Amino acid sequence: MDSAALLDLLGNENRRRILRLLAHKPCYVTEISEYLDVSPKAVIDHLRKLEEAGIIESRTDSQRRKYFHISRNLRLEVNVSPYEFGTKSAYPRNRALDVTTWRYLSLDIHASRDGDDSQSLAAELRELERLENELSMAQRWVQGRLTDVLDRLTDELEATENSRLYADVLLELAERPRGTDAISDAVDAPPGMVEQVLAEMAEEGLVSRVEDGWTLVE
Amino acid sequence: MDSAALLDLLGNENRRRILRLLAHKPCYVTEISEYLDVSPKAVIDHLRKLEEAGIIESRTDSQRRKYFHISRNLRLEVNVSPYEFGTKSAYPRNRALDVTTWRYLSLDIHASRDGDDSQSLAAELRELERLENELSMAQRWVQGRLTDVLDRLTDELEATENSRLYADVLLELAERPRGTDAISDAVDAPPGMVEQVLAEMAEEGLVSRVEDGWTLVE
Repeated sequence: MDSAALLDLLGNENRRRILRLLAHKPCYVTEISEYLDVSPKAVIDHLRKLEEAGIIESRTDSQRRKYFHISRNLRLEVNVSPYEFGTKSAYPRNRALDVTTWRYLSLDIHASRDGDDSQSLAAELRELERLENELSMAQRWVQGRLTDVLDRLTDELEATENSRLYADVLLELAERPRGTDAISDAVDAPPGMVEQVLAEMAEEGLVSRVEDGWTLVE
Repeated sequence: MDSAALLDLLGNENRRRILRLLAHKPCYVTEISEYLDVSPKAVIDHLRKLEEAGIIESRTDSQRRKYFHISRNLRLEVNVSPYEFGTKSAYPRNRALDVTTWRYLSLDIHASRDGDDSQSLAAELRELERLENELSMAQRWVQGRLTDVLDRLTDELEATENSRLYADVLLELAERPRGTDAISDAVDAPPGMVEQVLAEMAEEGLVSRVEDGWTLVE
């Protein structure tokens, strides 16, 4: 699902409390209502929204009680900085993903040992938890570095009222070469203004024209 | 700021649109209102909330126009899985952070080259952007692996209606040894139930008592 829909759903405290609860064990409406002290009517409404979004599902037990549980694995990341408001939501990658082919990143985990007894699974669990914390810290470090570089870059380009737009355009081109219109869409600025910025950056030797638009100069 | 407050703020489409706009360039109310086709009154209300949260700030220019810009660097992560509803918000780490001391993770970037001309800054920018993408992918992979391990673990422990609670308790202990009450708070389950689960897991040789509570067995 897209980040916007997910943020709308998670923007409600009681929906967050329901998800926190269901992450511990499947529950039925009365349980949730009593546990969270929220009216059954409101609980049902929240559950419906979460179910429609595919985040939760329900199954009915032998006593015809309808238990709800989280059915979806997903991850949302939001970066806020003077240069960026970025939201990204994604599903987890399965283990088939080759984690050895990254260019800037290498993981040193033994978690592939695949022991299936409780103890090695628990050890694997702890290892993955720690790796997850390190990855978070690394991402925060990268975000700090990015802002730092963009600060230096806008100084370098002499801060004009366009300096942020400079940075935005560079960020877009940093991902891959793009045409003016694509950049203009991506940065929400009129094509004319983007063309002008690109021309200035080309003079600086920062970017150059390529067949399909513009690219950063190596 | 805490994740809940941040999610409440970001749960509004127009506030997200305002942040996206301000990430490109500082704007004043009329600009925002026209650009987003939202009434000035509503824009002012959103800006106030964002300003109170310390996410944006304003400065007044020579023509006494009040420009708003994003003043805060922050990052929000949300993980949703059958075993977890986790939200984490944090500020970026500055470059002083030693990125070489991680146990499971190593970064291979030359971005420390510190060239200060536009071109090397742009190259550094691109490198950091790519690293950021790899880190996201790695985290999605880890989340997938975690769920996979927890699935296997709950099979191993014979799925009972408590199996999710087993997993929750293990996840808590995976971070560090904890006392029963701390675990009970963390997993939102009654201490008595947690004690029982811990006792069962101790029999399995999964956890053991330590001075300050319980720990995972290596």
